[in-house]
Amino acid sequence: MSEYRAGFCLWLTGLPSAGKTTISKELVPRLRARGWPVELLDGDEVRRGLSADLGFDRKSREVHAERVAFVARVLARNGVIPIVALISPYRVSRARARAEIGRFVEVYVTTPIDVCQERDVKGLYRRARAGEIKDMTGVDDPYEPPETPEIAVDAIHQSPGESAEFILRELDRLGWTA
Amino acid sequence: MSEYRAGFCLWLTGLPSAGKTTISKELVPRLRARGWPVELLDGDEVRRGLSADLGFDRKSREVHAERVAFVARVLARNGVIPIVALISPYRVSRARARAEIGRFVEVYVTTPIDVCQERDVKGLYRRARAGEIKDMTGVDDPYEPPETPEIAVDAIHQSPGESAEFILRELDRLGWTA
Repeated sequence: MSEYRAGFCLWLTGLPSAGKTTISKELVPRLRARGWPVELLDGDEVRRGLSADLGFDRKSREVHAERVAFVARVLARNGVIPIVALISPYRVSRARARAEIGRFVEVYVTTPIDVCQERDVKGLYRRARAGEIKDMTGVDDPYEPPETPEIAVDAIHQSPGESAEFILRELDRLGWTA
Repeated sequence: MSEYRAGFCLWLTGLPSAGKTTISKELVPRLRARGWPVELLDGDEVRRGLSADLGFDRKSREVHAERVAFVARVLARNGVIPIVALISPYRVSRARARAEIGRFVEVYVTTPIDVCQERDVKGLYRRARAGEIKDMTGVDDPYEPPETPEIAVDAIHQSPGESAEFILRELDRLGWTA
């Protein structure tokens, strides 16, 4: 049969502007350098491909997370590491993704709301406070932090590259990349 | 960097009951035996994961094909062979999938309508003729056959296993599995 290693899903959750995508982009070359095929499934990009029909209300976010999980599952079971960078604010959605995918590493990017609002990479917090958009996580839609993530990463006191290195060390320690 | 071979997409198109899924299931173990990671993306199954919201009208079929193509693309570029078994009745959808995926092998399962109607594996032709369902490909929705598929396979005069063997020989001859 085939000789590829079993893949697994790295699922990065956190508030908007927490640093999920930035850290993911630092993870990609580091994992590839170790010989892994890696696919970054960034929430915004995957929306264009899979969920152009969906909005940001709770039901839409849940359905979107299910579609992302579907893609992550077929990648992981073929030896790829899908890195999901998705707010995924609801515990139930992340639990479903975990059940669907099986080999699942939840990475909580712990940046608190005040720092995220100050960063406001895409200007979404400002627009939400101005009433221009609704269902904004952290403003008028809840973010339910993970209670027992495999990895919790600080994205304030270290650079994105350092956060990625921390995650890699944790993956090694937990036996995922052995 | 990583050592996996470049993947490619096998896209099986044809009328309902042409034999797409059956042949695909014969292809999976044969390609795996050659060391390839393979993922069967069967139209009906993928619908449950990605397109539970969609019907069978033209627009829905096009959007569904785009989502399947998205998944096939991320698999193929990570060294996997996605085998898509999808009626995909419209030329424009298949052309878009080809453009999106790049490494794309269109396999036309040529079973003609009269044989498909006689097989009627899922009873859909009968139900369409009875007016119980609409937008049925080959009945009240068109099937646009490929004009220049990479591979055209006879699924009448040979067994599904023989059809799969034929496709493998064609892939070898065309240089995809070298």
